Order: sequence, then structure tokens, then C-alpha cells
Amino acid sequence: MSTLVAPKNHFPKDDADVLWKAVKGWGTDESSIIDIMGHRNAAQRQQIRLAYNDIYQEDLIKRLESELSGDFEKAMYRWILEPAERYAVLANVAIRNANKDYHVIVEIACVLHPDELLSVRHAYHNRYKHSLEEDVAAYTNGHLRQLLVGLVTSFRYDGIEINPSLAKFEANILHEAIKDNKGNLEEVIRILSTRSKTQLLATFNSYRDLHSISITKKLLNEVSDDFLKAVHVAIRCLNDHKKYYEKVLRNALKRVGTDEDGLTRVVVTRAEKDLKDIKELYYKRNSVHIEDAVAKEISGNYKRFLLTLLGKEH
Amino acid sequence: MSTLVAPKNHFPKDDADVLWKAVKGWGTDESSIIDIMGHRNAAQRQQIRLAYNDIYQEDLIKRLESELSGDFEKAMYRWILEPAERYAVLANVAIRNANKDYHVIVEIACVLHPDELLSVRHAYHNRYKHSLEEDVAAYTNGHLRQLLVGLVTSFRYDGIEINPSLAKFEANILHEAIKDNKGNLEEVIRILSTRSKTQLLATFNSYRDLHSISITKKLLNEVSDDFLKAVHVAIRCLNDHKKYYEKVLRNALKRVGTDEDGLTRVVVTRAEKDLKDIKELYYKRNSVHIEDAVAKEISGNYKRFLLTLLGKEH
Repeated sequence: MSTLVAPKNHFPKDDADVLWKAVKGWGTDESSIIDIMGHRNAAQRQQIRLAYNDIYQEDLIKRLESELSGDFEKAMYRWILEPAERYAVLANVAIRNANKDYHVIVEIACVLHPDELLSVRHAYHNRYKHSLEEDVAAYTNGHLRQLLVGLVTSFRYDGIEINPSLAKFEANILHEAIKDNKGNLEEVIRILSTRSKTQLLATFNSYRDLHSISITKKLLNEVSDDFLKAVHVAIRCLNDHKKYYEKVLRNALKRVGTDEDGLTRVVVTRAEKDLKDIKELYYKRNSVHIEDAVAKEISGNYKRFLLTLLGKEH
Repeated sequence: MSTLVAPKNHFPKDDADVLWKAVKGWGTDESSIIDIMGHRNAAQRQQIRLAYNDIYQEDLIKRLESELSGDFEKAMYRWILEPAERYAVLANVAIRNANKDYHVIVEIACVLHPDELLSVRHAYHNRYKHSLEEDVAAYTNGHLRQLLVGLVTSFRYDGIEINPSLAKFEANILHEAIKDNKGNLEEVIRILSTRSKTQLLATFNSYRDLHSISITKKLLNEVSDDFLKAVHVAIRCLNDHKKYYEKVLRNALKRVGTDEDGLTRVVVTRAEKDLKDIKELYYKRNSVHIEDAVAKEISGNYKRFLLTLLGKEH
């Protein structure tokens, strides 16, 4: 369930007018911008961009970039973009810092539906004049490169068929490869980057049945290098991305100095999808409402905007 | 230029009637089948399939499979399928014999436009309930697997921008990797499977400028294992697929015992695309018209059908 509260009937020209008044002249009326943009779905935001461009002959995104600043600007910018374009931007930023941010690339590749991932690859072409895999490959190397390129280029079969004996067989391959960190890592890459999600869930379940521990827990005991860390993220995203995002939010908020990038990323990418479910998981796990945690850790327009996307009226 | 001769105005129901008469009862009128199907483009063939199914409540393809036999049946079957489906079938057959037929997988991945390759991956899902890369990876290993998976999963940028210094830089990486067969093969895989075709042409040209030999000739001097052979095919297909196909035809026809699979594959996949150009290249290189070579090497309905697709009226 989404947390976004958007009106059914919507008048793009009126919104464009309000936004124009909010940005024209000296000073900026950030509250009006949040009130509008924080309550419009992806299609409505695109209509506003078009209407704004028609009436005022300027690009709304560029204008907002020049009016806003800091984490608020960053969050608003990511929010306004169409989903495929937004993921292309998130991927590109992560790629240029791939040794630290490879988990963002893994997330995008493993959480999205195969068709959505193709749309991101299209959007990446249009925006960066390179292919997504080209840039990922240029900024990484070794097994990490193989894994990341394998994941972003995957076009998984999305049917529900399961081959149980294959699941058992490949659960053992994963086990052998992980347990002493000297196993056949290419097989780990092959399995994670080519099998369907349904088949992989069966494999992860087989793993638990056979070895009395979940593969993600096992990896936590073993994790030492970036490759296995990326494998860990991939499995978590493939297995249960809501639980994974709850953890990202938890880590982002409990750090000394909040991880604004992580916080923003989860809120803007999930607000229209399943942020409500993620919020519930967060409350279950932390006994604190995420809105309260967010309100405590960040401030100003950035805080108001994220709380709006989280569905909190104030 | 295509070799296919198809009428502008076309009446699917009439064609379906003729085909029905050709297959019903004892015996089969292969000539009528060739006259019709050998003169219809992809869209027309699909309309005939639909009309036939509507009127006679049976699948034309299945009926033809049971009526025809041998290389003629195989060629007709591949020809009738829509292009994406046909490539999916060709890929699947090749995958199950990947240690011998990896060149077919390379061809499909490197000759098709990036969007066409995506359509093939879609068709593969629908037909085989697996992803293309999943099956490729399951039947291969080592560097050959990495290369083949990289190629079939690529979604190359198809713009015309070239980075000349990158071309020079990567031409040298390729040279170092190939020359003693101990170089960094992962870099070869990265370059061939992620760069745009335009960029790769610039790289191959740089190679020739820097090393006074084309990279394909150099590879011929070095080729020893399947991996480098697959690299050779990939570069030929990326560089100039028409020249590559001319060679496939030449080899198919000059072998003791014709290579019918190669011959059929080139004719049915290129008849509606650029088989006329490939025919011209063939004549230039061999001083023999390909129709004459085909007529000498094969016989019967298979011969009649291929000659029809080659544009020869008889």
C-alpha cells in the first residue's frame, strides 16, 4: 500500500499557477510547493511539468533546483522525475561511487520487476548516452563487476513455475560457495542473476531446510568483502524487499548523523508503491513510528516534505 | 535489400484455402505451399496463420510439420515463425548444443538491433518459461559463458556518439589481451558486451591503425580455443554482419556434405532484410551466383524453397 495522498480530480494548470507564485520574485514559498508536489502521483506530476512548461515557458525541475537547496532539493528533484528516469539518476550517482554505493545498484536491479528494469535501461540510454551495464562495468571490476553487470542486465522470467529439485541443487551450490569463501563464485553470480524470483525463493527456502539457517544469516556470519556484501543485499532484495527497506530506514535513522541519501531514496521510491507496508514493518521492529523517528532526526522543509510523503498530515 | 518477392495486395483467406487444399487428404502439394509461403512477408504470413486457424480450426504450423519433412520442413517452420519467435527457437536449439553452436548465439546477440534482441528475450520467456540468459548460463561455463551471457543480455546504446580516445585505449586493451592469449579476458568481455556498435567500430578501426592488421585477422592467427573463436564471431558480426553471413554461406556450401542448418539459417533470417546485399558479396567473393551453388548442392523441395526465398523465379 502506498502512503501518498493524492486527489482524484486534479487541475494541472491550477497547480502550475500555484507553483509559479511560489517561486517567482524574491524568496520561495516552500510550503506551497510541498503541499502541491507532496500530494500528486507520478502521472499528475508529469501533467504539472507539462502545464508549467506550456504556460511559463520554463522547465519546472530546473526552476525548483535553483530555488531549493540541500536535502530538500535533492528529495524534491528525485520525487518529480518519472520512476524510470529517477532510477536512472539513482543508478548513475551510485555507479560513480560504486565501491561504496553498489548496494543501490543491486537494489534497483533486484527489487524492480523485469519490465521496469528494462524501462530504466531505456531511460539511462536517453539521459546518459551510454548503457547502464556499460557504466557499471567501467567503474567496477572482478567478481563484483560480474555480479552487478549480471544483475542490471537480467531480464528474469516472471512466471510462477518452480523446479524443486533444481532449487535443492542450487541451494547446495550456494552453500558450498559461501561457506569457506573459496567456492565457485561464478555459480553464485549465475544463479542470482539469471533465475526467476519465484525459483530463487524456492532455492532460499531449500537452503534453510537443508542447513537450518537462512542464507542471509549465514552470509552475515561470513561476510568479509564487497562481493559477498553485494550478494547479501541481492538476496535480501530478491527475497523480501520490504523487510530490506525497513532495515535501510532503520540504519539511516539510527546512525550518528542521519543517512539522508538512504532515507530519501526509500521514501521517494516507495511512497507510491508499498511505503505503508514498510512503515508497519518499521513500527513492528522498532516500536517507534517512523514519522516520529524522522521528525526527531531531520528538520525544516526536508522534514515537512518527507513527512508528507510518509502520509502524515500536519 | 531483401530478396523476398511478395505481393502488395494479399488475401489471407484465399491463401489459407490454397494451403488447405495442398495439405488435405493423401499426399501433399509442396509446390503450392512454396508458391504461397515463399512469397509472403512476415505480416502476411501471420495473417495467413490466423485466417487458416479461423477457417479450419487447426494450427497451420503443426499441420505443415506433419505434412513436410527433413530440411524442407525445418526451413519452412523457421520461416513461418515471427522473427522474434524464430530467433528464440534458433537460440534454444543452439544453447542445447552450445559447445558446438555458440556462434549462433553470438550471431543473434551481435547482429540484431538492441530493441530486436529484447523482443527475442521476451519471446524466449513465452516459449520456454526461462530467460534466455538463464539457459545460456546453464549450458556453458568459464569465460565462454561470461561472454555469451554478456552478449545476450546486452542492451547497447544505439546513438552515434564516438569517444575517439576511448576507442584507442580499448583497442590497446584488446590487443594486449589477445596477443599472448594470457591477457585480461574479462576486459575483452566487458568491451564487446557493453559498448555501442558505433563505438566498437571506432575501436576496431583504431586497432587497425595502431597495429597494421585488423583485429579479426589477428584473431585468426591466434585462435585456439572456443572463447577466442566466439570473440572472433562477435567482432565479425558487430563489424560487418553481411560479410560475416557471406562467409557462413560459403562455408555451408563448400563443405563436403552441405551444412543445411547454416544455409537455412542465413536464408530465412535475412531474406526479408538484406539477403540481396549478401548475395552480391557472395558473387564478388566466389565468382559464382549463390543460386547456382545452392542448386548444385541441395535438391527437391528444400532447394525449390530456398531458391524462392533467394528471389530466383523458376
